[in-house]
Amino acid sequence: MNALSSVQPAPPVSDASAVATAVAAVVAAGRSAALRGWVPATSGNFSVRIDAETVALTRSGVDKGRLTPDDVLIQPVDAPPVARASAETPLHLGLYRARPEIGAIFHTHSPAASVIGAGLLAEGAVRISGWELQKALASVRTHEATVEVPIFANDQDTAALAERIAERQAQPVAGVVAAPGYLLAGHGLYAWGATAAEAERHLEALEVLFAQILALKQFAA
Amino acid sequence: MNALSSVQPAPPVSDASAVATAVAAVVAAGRSAALRGWVPATSGNFSVRIDAETVALTRSGVDKGRLTPDDVLIQPVDAPPVARASAETPLHLGLYRARPEIGAIFHTHSPAASVIGAGLLAEGAVRISGWELQKALASVRTHEATVEVPIFANDQDTAALAERIAERQAQPVAGVVAAPGYLLAGHGLYAWGATAAEAERHLEALEVLFAQILALKQFAA
Amino acid sequence: MNALSSVQPAPPVSDASAVATAVAAVVAAGRSAALRGWVPATSGNFSVRIDAETVALTRSGVDKGRLTPDDVLIQPVDAPPVARASAETPLHLGLYRARPEIGAIFHTHSPAASVIGAGLLAEGAVRISGWELQKALASVRTHEATVEVPIFANDQDTAALAERIAERQAQPVAGVVAAPGYLLAGHGLYAWGATAAEAERHLEALEVLFAQILALKQFAA
Amino acid sequence: MNALSSVQPAPPVSDASAVATAVAAVVAAGRSAALRGWVPATSGNFSVRIDAETVALTRSGVDKGRLTPDDVLIQPVDAPPVARASAETPLHLGLYRARPEIGAIFHTHSPAASVIGAGLLAEGAVRISGWELQKALASVRTHEATVEVPIFANDQDTAALAERIAERQAQPVAGVVAAPGYLLAGHGLYAWGATAAEAERHLEALEVLFAQILALKQFAA
Repeated sequence: MNALSSVQPAPPVSDASAVATAVAAVVAAGRSAALRGWVPATSGNFSVRIDAETVALTRSGVDKGRLTPDDVLIQPVDAPPVARASAETPLHLGLYRARPEIGAIFHTHSPAASVIGAGLLAEGAVRISGWELQKALASVRTHEATVEVPIFANDQDTAALAERIAERQAQPVAGVVAAPGYLLAGHGLYAWGATAAEAERHLEALEVLFAQILALKQFAA
Repeated sequence: MNALSSVQPAPPVSDASAVATAVAAVVAAGRSAALRGWVPATSGNFSVRIDAETVALTRSGVDKGRLTPDDVLIQPVDAPPVARASAETPLHLGLYRARPEIGAIFHTHSPAASVIGAGLLAEGAVRISGWELQKALASVRTHEATVEVPIFANDQDTAALAERIAERQAQPVAGVVAAPGYLLAGHGLYAWGATAAEAERHLEALEVLFAQILALKQFAA
Repeated sequence: MNALSSVQPAPPVSDASAVATAVAAVVAAGRSAALRGWVPATSGNFSVRIDAETVALTRSGVDKGRLTPDDVLIQPVDAPPVARASAETPLHLGLYRARPEIGAIFHTHSPAASVIGAGLLAEGAVRISGWELQKALASVRTHEATVEVPIFANDQDTAALAERIAERQAQPVAGVVAAPGYLLAGHGLYAWGATAAEAERHLEALEVLFAQILALKQFAA
Repeated sequence: MNALSSVQPAPPVSDASAVATAVAAVVAAGRSAALRGWVPATSGNFSVRIDAETVALTRSGVDKGRLTPDDVLIQPVDAPPVARASAETPLHLGLYRARPEIGAIFHTHSPAASVIGAGLLAEGAVRISGWELQKALASVRTHEATVEVPIFANDQDTAALAERIAERQAQPVAGVVAAPGYLLAGHGLYAWGATAAEAERHLEALEVLFAQILALKQFAA
């Protein structure tokens, strides 16, 4: 990428230390999720924003429990997916483009998220209320709030899916707090945050809330 | 806190070794609970009494799996919460003030405790009987005893909540053994003991009893 | 225990290496069960036979996850419980006296064992059939056999309980294979084997069979 | 096996490095499954193809969590089971003989696989559709595909069982994708792949899909 030999504008050059920090955060988040059993059989993908134009993103098909910096790609936010990028790259890039405040996006395939998404797809969302743990989400101050996690039908055309998600994200719902995440039915959870640490807290809070909702339904049955 | 320059009485000075022991016990209890999955997404808080006037207490918002002594605050029992203290500090201090025999209080957000509390709030308590494991509670000698764990509605006003809890704690219930703990509906468990080791045993016993009650309900359904 | 100064017959002297081997096997079995979550809150107890007259046995009230050789007592098979022995020592000694082929007895308080025992006490036994895993029990050759695990009501008078268990063990049931273990309702599992390794295999097989029975009941519901 | 002193044709001599690689892959797969709780009480067996004529295979009755290269046997594909081979060796060899593209076969006894097999035996198969995770199977491209995992009644005569399995494998079912695995009712899962890594991914994907199916059934109940 020798910008001197090109008549096109030079691509943005990310700071080396910012790249290393983002790559390390991707590796840490992927390994942590693997230890929790949330990314079975090479599923899931993880990204952390480097700067306004670039993100670090796991490549396709790698076991997240054995993730190394070599498995992390550098992907421009406004370009098509680079070689070896995951098929779900458009779902990450769409969010980074639309919402500059997002600093990290983690996608997991946990059983609880897969099951809640499949079981409640017809309702279009799962609504969370009455749980203290929902306060771990940055925008929630009380267990009395109602938090809405949208549910989308799964689609192998991830570019089309990213558009449907962007449309719905742009339409706030009155009376509920929008969760920093959404579900794909039978597939899993996308969760995000302003930083990798916040995205990890949001991911863990949503995963545990889903598990609690499943357990309460059985207890109350 | 230079007492020489003040006309007020000097605050009590805790023994350095007692402080270090209490801080280490807080760190150990928090890390142990994190390994069990009982304090997701920076939830939960842990305190150990240093002496009659002072306790060691986790600060707000820290991941208990990475707890270090720097995350533990020294909090006077009879003073308002110190800077960076958890919003739930009044729930700890109320118990330490009312009951001098309590040496440690551990608060967890496990799925089982959250679900039992939410599912049985209308009954005001969960009653435990017929389980050998209830003998792990200091005041219980037989599986034939009935142990009562009160359940309170969750409240973001923790000072008001602490008062309601103190009122109910002051009214013993005939025919049941009061558990060394209570539940906040949809929130989690507070458990305590005369020492950190006893509080940890009580916490583990109550958590497993809740899990057994959930499992028996499903089996008998 | 200086036998020279006594007119009574000298107690049997166990071989030092046999003692060390049995103590090490008790520590290993207790720690392994703790890692599986089968002995919460200092519950459970573990013994391994040293020779015809003596066994090594965990003392009362110790956290099995931190078990050391200092927590293991040497207990004569034909004598009353030694100082600091568990209240459940009679349940171990009764089996060792009645059945010389038993080399190790492991007692756990797992949720699955507690729940199955409580849920099926009225039937007096849990019958296991159709599972390949039952072949891990020494006396079972096919998944078509029916294995019977007796269930007894819990009792704090462990000497009386040991007698009821011995009576029932002495009466074989036609058409079923007697499991190398029994359940105490709401309490847990006793499992045994000719060696510590066999007792550990039997313990694990029964625990997992109980978990499978619970799961199949829910699935078929 | 000194071929010089024999009038029979010399048996094929496997490359030493290929043997070492296959043995290491068997040990790694067995230990990994043990950590997941999928091979309780010495159950399960694991094989990796060395070359067209030979496979590496776990011996009978070994704890997979403590597997070492000494516990792995070298077994000709076209010969009867060697000494100390598992009783289930015919199930491995039948697949290796019929399908040269199979490079590794892993057999687990997980609770989820045992329960699904027992619960759905009357239907003869479990059909998987609508889950993103099914794309972790090599032949599946979309969550909209229907993947069929055949279920066979368990049988202690593993040679006869191997024949029934071979017959059904030879009859493709229209409209469904054949899974790289099958279930034995109340027994467990056989899964395979072109390489050890692929077999491990297939095993994990199928195990988690079974767990999701169990959980969705309870949630939707």
